[in-house]
Amino acid sequence: MSTDLTTKDTELQSVIEQLVESYSACGHLHHLAHEPLPSREAVAEIVADLTELLYPGFGRRQDLHVGNIGYLVGGLVDGLHGKLTRQIGRALRHENPCDETAYPEAESEAEGKALELLRRLPEIRRTLEADVEAAYRGDPAAKSHHEIVFSYPGVEAITVFRLANVLHQLKVAFIPRMMTELAHSRTGIDIHPGATIGPGFFIDHGTGVVIGETCHIGQRVRLYQGVTLGALSFDRDSVGEMVHGDYKRHPTLCDDVVVYANATILGGRTVIGEGAVVGSNVWLTKSVEPYAVVVLDNPQHKVKGRSRPEQEALMYHI
Amino acid sequence: MSTDLTTKDTELQSVIEQLVESYSACGHLHHLAHEPLPSREAVAEIVADLTELLYPGFGRRQDLHVGNIGYLVGGLVDGLHGKLTRQIGRALRHENPCDETAYPEAESEAEGKALELLRRLPEIRRTLEADVEAAYRGDPAAKSHHEIVFSYPGVEAITVFRLANVLHQLKVAFIPRMMTELAHSRTGIDIHPGATIGPGFFIDHGTGVVIGETCHIGQRVRLYQGVTLGALSFDRDSVGEMVHGDYKRHPTLCDDVVVYANATILGGRTVIGEGAVVGSNVWLTKSVEPYAVVVLDNPQHKVKGRSRPEQEALMYHI
Amino acid sequence: MSTDLTTKDTELQSVIEQLVESYSACGHLHHLAHEPLPSREAVAEIVADLTELLYPGFGRRQDLHVGNIGYLVGGLVDGLHGKLTRQIGRALRHENPCDETAYPEAESEAEGKALELLRRLPEIRRTLEADVEAAYRGDPAAKSHHEIVFSYPGVEAITVFRLANVLHQLKVAFIPRMMTELAHSRTGIDIHPGATIGPGFFIDHGTGVVIGETCHIGQRVRLYQGVTLGALSFDRDSVGEMVHGDYKRHPTLCDDVVVYANATILGGRTVIGEGAVVGSNVWLTKSVEPYAVVVLDNPQHKVKGRSRPEQEALMYHI
Repeated sequence: MSTDLTTKDTELQSVIEQLVESYSACGHLHHLAHEPLPSREAVAEIVADLTELLYPGFGRRQDLHVGNIGYLVGGLVDGLHGKLTRQIGRALRHENPCDETAYPEAESEAEGKALELLRRLPEIRRTLEADVEAAYRGDPAAKSHHEIVFSYPGVEAITVFRLANVLHQLKVAFIPRMMTELAHSRTGIDIHPGATIGPGFFIDHGTGVVIGETCHIGQRVRLYQGVTLGALSFDRDSVGEMVHGDYKRHPTLCDDVVVYANATILGGRTVIGEGAVVGSNVWLTKSVEPYAVVVLDNPQHKVKGRSRPEQEALMYHI
Repeated sequence: MSTDLTTKDTELQSVIEQLVESYSACGHLHHLAHEPLPSREAVAEIVADLTELLYPGFGRRQDLHVGNIGYLVGGLVDGLHGKLTRQIGRALRHENPCDETAYPEAESEAEGKALELLRRLPEIRRTLEADVEAAYRGDPAAKSHHEIVFSYPGVEAITVFRLANVLHQLKVAFIPRMMTELAHSRTGIDIHPGATIGPGFFIDHGTGVVIGETCHIGQRVRLYQGVTLGALSFDRDSVGEMVHGDYKRHPTLCDDVVVYANATILGGRTVIGEGAVVGSNVWLTKSVEPYAVVVLDNPQHKVKGRSRPEQEALMYHI
Repeated sequence: MSTDLTTKDTELQSVIEQLVESYSACGHLHHLAHEPLPSREAVAEIVADLTELLYPGFGRRQDLHVGNIGYLVGGLVDGLHGKLTRQIGRALRHENPCDETAYPEAESEAEGKALELLRRLPEIRRTLEADVEAAYRGDPAAKSHHEIVFSYPGVEAITVFRLANVLHQLKVAFIPRMMTELAHSRTGIDIHPGATIGPGFFIDHGTGVVIGETCHIGQRVRLYQGVTLGALSFDRDSVGEMVHGDYKRHPTLCDDVVVYANATILGGRTVIGEGAVVGSNVWLTKSVEPYAVVVLDNPQHKVKGRSRPEQEALMYHI
């Protein structure tokens, strides 16, 4: 190191060297290779473009009408095919890392998967139409269908889920989860891209909702904020390590089930029967009959204190 | 279709045609008309500009002092009047869609509503001053008032609510809810723009808080994360459809009430009396007397297992 | 006011004057002074740059390899030292406001603290390596370590916490909390920068998690969404005002503790012993023995109704 470096420069140089050295050790936190990973920014852009196609007139491009909509759609679909192919190709090559020439079919495979997602868009729109209708019927505060499309976080989360779910079915790595985590970040609703969810699905408010990978959710199901559809415990292999994979760990909700705020339903064998209602804050690890209404029993609380001085004294014990 | 199109091009062409066709069917997911809807980007910009006026020196423009603050304020107020008028005009025309000339007063009505919101800013600042003071008094981790303005999500959510609430009172469609959902996305706090909330309001941490449209909240009320002030059930009309509207579905919290983390209070006739305290995780559907302290009764849990092997066996039953 | 102003202009002028006047009153909502506050945008940029150094190849810069990584790191470290010095300097001068010349050492003190944070980065990377490994071992839905770094909100929150915690230890005002609130906004996970958290820490899903300022968390601890590690009540001084400061208000979790979704653990004297498991929705204000398993006792709910008409009647009482 040259002697005319100031102390600060020497110190910074040392930080730089240690960091670079730390990347040469084997580790999971860096990816230094000529084959890049999918890009978070590109995935966000893809989600924005797909959303524009699903809900034209609500997004960035305004003043759309029957005379110009074809141009917007043409440009977006064409651009999306390229963007999707590029990112899916990165994910495919990363899953099969050998060497670059070992996976020559990655490009055409990526093209095919990109096309398949685009092909499914009209069908996804029909399902989302049922989801938005369910929101309108399920929320007395909803003023119009347009308000729901514009501002309901549940609609944003289910939209991104329905797109990511197609890529999950097509066995694309990374990207489906990157997409649903983008929606999770914006809405507080965490839906694993592997879940199975029927049409007419509505989540109101939504913050804190968690829907696990192996959930099965029927048609016209309604959830409120803070609902967990989770796992009870995890299978372990013979040396006690958790088994990674797709065995059913999360519950099944049949058609027309309603689950109120902050209820928790756990376990792969737990089935909530058709038309059943699970009340707010209920904690369930067993199946429920069709049309049953499960509510908290008499409030498990007591009332203490009725006057200001009594209250002041009690505050220290809450 | 020309024969020199590749298979890929043919496929993309078919996707484009099906999408365009899907927009011609009647539906709620697209808006193809010469009258555009309010723009999400423009509404976000309006919220940012209003926040700059409410908290000068904390935002984008720095180095502000008494000698130059007038220029900033003048420019922002003038620009905001234009931006607000444009977006409010879109909302008004959308609510009265007939044809363009049928609602010639939309422009001047929008101008008036924009002006009214700006006129209310000094009053909103006084209320927010009380809200920030309540945060300082209510959180022992708060180091200074400046830290609260800078980084408390509860302050962000209540700020946007107080702005959106004025537009809600002025009967502007879409925009109030777009504003509060913007704050919901950033903070996890979901306050309906129609709620009534007195000064000195503080929400700590805040993720998962839901405050329904017809809540009445008095002065100096304090809430923690995950608190739901929600509805019990919804009125239905004679054919079983949910009634949309403003009948009181959500609770009333009188002055100086404190509600701890993850408590749930439901129902339009539920009144939490002045100075009452509702403990963490309590679930309430009945009214509470003034100064009462409602806490969970003895923990409803059992302790199982004391050794590692016992625990391993139990893990499968949690 | 000139008579050729239109009514609208007069009204806007009056709004501007009232706002400017409101800033001249003493208050906490504005900061008009030549010494600017730290900038939220600059702090967000600093977090992005630091993240790029911690996880190269996952972020903005792609196509990184051993031949060019040195350039990226050199440029980022050098730039970060400048950005950090500037923002930390603002925070230091704001805490010691007297007059500008009264705190001439602010600049070199800020330089030193900036350098110290950078110096700690390799150590932080080693801790985060353990955190990511814990996520892989703790989540059966995890497909790979890369997926975890890319998309797990728990990893984002703990990463920002570990950076902010260093600045908190260095007694820098504002900036640590601004950093953790940035992560809170994106992930729904609220970790106070003052908490103490050992390596191998994993938060799954995460929305609604709150970890208070004086928590002590051992090694290899795992939390799920909605877990609160909070305070029971607050010390008050002799005139009833809340005491601001660092006395222990939040619980201690020893090594290898697991806390399932939406459990609440409160109080500065509450200690969860080594290897203990706290089940979903449990509410605890007392200590728990090592290796104990605490679960909800028999579900506190009742099942009402078995047929559609019975259910319709019951809906009004949920």
